[in-house]
Amino acid sequence: MPFSNYQILDQQSVLSFVSEIPSLTPYLGGTLAGWQACEVGDGNVNLVFAVQGPAGSLCLKQALPFVRMVGESWPLTVERAFFEYQCLEEHRRHVPDLLPKIYYYDPKMRVIVMEYLHPHLILLKGMMAGIRYPRLAEDISEYLARTLFYTSSFGMPAAEKKRKMALFCGNTELCRIMEDVIFTDPYHIHVRNRWTSPQLDSVAAEFREDVQLKIAASRLKLAYMTKTEALIHGDLHTGSIMVTPENTRVIDHEFAFYGPMGFDIGAVIGNLLLNYFSQEGYTGPSDSRGDYQEWLLDTVECIWLQFQSKFIALWESNNEIEVYPPALFDDAANRLALAEERRRWLRECFEETMGYCGAKIIRRILGQAHGRDMEQIEDPDLRASCELPCLRLAREMMVNARAYKSIREVTMFCRELRQEGLRLVATRT
Amino acid sequence: MPFSNYQILDQQSVLSFVSEIPSLTPYLGGTLAGWQACEVGDGNVNLVFAVQGPAGSLCLKQALPFVRMVGESWPLTVERAFFEYQCLEEHRRHVPDLLPKIYYYDPKMRVIVMEYLHPHLILLKGMMAGIRYPRLAEDISEYLARTLFYTSSFGMPAAEKKRKMALFCGNTELCRIMEDVIFTDPYHIHVRNRWTSPQLDSVAAEFREDVQLKIAASRLKLAYMTKTEALIHGDLHTGSIMVTPENTRVIDHEFAFYGPMGFDIGAVIGNLLLNYFSQEGYTGPSDSRGDYQEWLLDTVECIWLQFQSKFIALWESNNEIEVYPPALFDDAANRLALAEERRRWLRECFEETMGYCGAKIIRRILGQAHGRDMEQIEDPDLRASCELPCLRLAREMMVNARAYKSIREVTMFCRELRQEGLRLVATRT
Repeated sequence: MPFSNYQILDQQSVLSFVSEIPSLTPYLGGTLAGWQACEVGDGNVNLVFAVQGPAGSLCLKQALPFVRMVGESWPLTVERAFFEYQCLEEHRRHVPDLLPKIYYYDPKMRVIVMEYLHPHLILLKGMMAGIRYPRLAEDISEYLARTLFYTSSFGMPAAEKKRKMALFCGNTELCRIMEDVIFTDPYHIHVRNRWTSPQLDSVAAEFREDVQLKIAASRLKLAYMTKTEALIHGDLHTGSIMVTPENTRVIDHEFAFYGPMGFDIGAVIGNLLLNYFSQEGYTGPSDSRGDYQEWLLDTVECIWLQFQSKFIALWESNNEIEVYPPALFDDAANRLALAEERRRWLRECFEETMGYCGAKIIRRILGQAHGRDMEQIEDPDLRASCELPCLRLAREMMVNARAYKSIREVTMFCRELRQEGLRLVATRT
Repeated sequence: MPFSNYQILDQQSVLSFVSEIPSLTPYLGGTLAGWQACEVGDGNVNLVFAVQGPAGSLCLKQALPFVRMVGESWPLTVERAFFEYQCLEEHRRHVPDLLPKIYYYDPKMRVIVMEYLHPHLILLKGMMAGIRYPRLAEDISEYLARTLFYTSSFGMPAAEKKRKMALFCGNTELCRIMEDVIFTDPYHIHVRNRWTSPQLDSVAAEFREDVQLKIAASRLKLAYMTKTEALIHGDLHTGSIMVTPENTRVIDHEFAFYGPMGFDIGAVIGNLLLNYFSQEGYTGPSDSRGDYQEWLLDTVECIWLQFQSKFIALWESNNEIEVYPPALFDDAANRLALAEERRRWLRECFEETMGYCGAKIIRRILGQAHGRDMEQIEDPDLRASCELPCLRLAREMMVNARAYKSIREVTMFCRELRQEGLRLVATRT
């Protein structure tokens, strides 16, 4: 058996690999001779093959023993394929339609074979092309509300939750990456950091000296390391979401672990806002994408507001809940107080979400693994003028989220910052 | 081999069990024929034997498959012996002198053989006898500061912490007991509840209707279920501490898991305060133990204040710390801000500690497994007059801890409540 031990696949061997698994053949049709494979991975850490046959396609993802975008100098456990598969299986129980279908998992080869999503684009690319996704807010808020609720102490018996926690405690190596690159590296001199230079040199230096900001980053890091609220995706940026205008799927669950809910919600919102500020860089102020940017802000608002109302609805309707048990709150006055407590809990979640949103933005502008939306802007002056207001937003969210009474106030602040950015560009040209 | 499978030991078979483990013989001296065993367990859930030989003694603890004080109708996993042993081993790394020495662990028989502590008393009994323990605050604050710090994200690398978390995720059955009996049962009608009746009927009913209190209890329960701060003892009441005036040992770690630090600190403080209010019941107002009660309040203050300063000192001196990493806070201004953040963190810990202190008190007066100090008071009117001010304190700590700027303000409030209690007794007689 050529594939009984781990080996890195290529465009040839991936076909032999697939041919040895009879259950996969129907998805492709025909035989090995009529199949084609193409490496399509554009993420930072894995190999991804599209395999095509006469009857259809499938997608094969293999974990590499190093960080792909850096190379073998940064080793990375292939165990992550196991955690990705486990998280997909758990999340599937709660949002089957928002994930790719899984056809096969090979624990030795660290391979997951799944549905080839077509004609889906990575959300990031779609946004760069100015495409609207009318289902996005509905679907992502659904994904967040259901996966976070049902894997939390609100939606799952304690013993079952602890069993799953124990499993995902093993995914420490990937958590460690996040602990470093999000919460630590951007706040001191580090070889992994990179930014638009010299334009952002002074703001990068300012952030490294900003003690309030560093305290905020450390506080969010502590919560990331100790708050086992729910089985979170762990890397829910706009490159982990595949979309058509009619359909949404969440992929790439290898960073999954039991962590704070706000880390997932903040990741989506932060990366959408990053894109909002990048839009100026594609077209310039004369040919503005102002309407598209408004759609992005609407989407951010809807994601939070719908997450909030869906989460509350799930909480209200769960009669088996072990925390805030219904037996303790069994008349009108009690239910009123409990409803108030739910709002308080969601307010805390909002503030934490905004904090993580800010942390995610800063790592993508001053740290490692930048967003492609900003990177695509070739003129460094223009890029910096997009990045700067986005950094201002991020800092504010990390340090001062408490002052924002609603998501609407956050998006209003984004508009103000964008106007300032436009004036900056106008002054320059 | 008679002991290759689990069987419940008795005074005879425990001697054969010990005799089959050659490494234990030196602690006893002589041979089986010269040994004696005596069942000395007075806890709620286990068998404990003192085994004596010509040269010395040892203590043998066996987990029973049911809750001892209830009987076989309440089954309980014997797996808890494993978690007790694992926690003892971990805590021993940080406070070797504050635990009993462990001689042997038998995973099949669920037996831990350890040092026979002599002339130690259970702290609870010592307090009931009015004995002062000048080392207590020093030792318990040391136990709390070191075990909580070194098993937390402040004192242990994340990967090692997650490995231990995974292990203790298995101890869900014992956690479930706490979730029920501390945070839920006392707040609604439940068969496990018991109180001094009819004297406390109205306050028990009042608490069941007190929606603020029930919200507070649920919030503390949620933190108990999701805040994986440190490997906590999990049941650190005054029956889990053995003392002489010169020596302190912490025992009974079977409820250990990764939980909120305040749960341990609040357990000690809550049970000391329970004893403070019970003292009136032993001697009556004419022959007051006022001085001893002042010693108890001093001890409570010192435990918190010394815990606080020791924890901060450990935090300040750990250069390998992964959260709030020193690399980010490397000049005088930064260190000042970090010192302020440490105080903020400890303030949060204080409020949570006071909340758990209150929850622990309420379960011991209105729920199950009452404190023996209160139970010993035979006159139900007198007992109720001791319990009532203690309940008032507990409710205040759960709902309103934020209003207390320091532990000193809490102990002042205890004095006020005691005076009110005395007036109550005086009025009655």
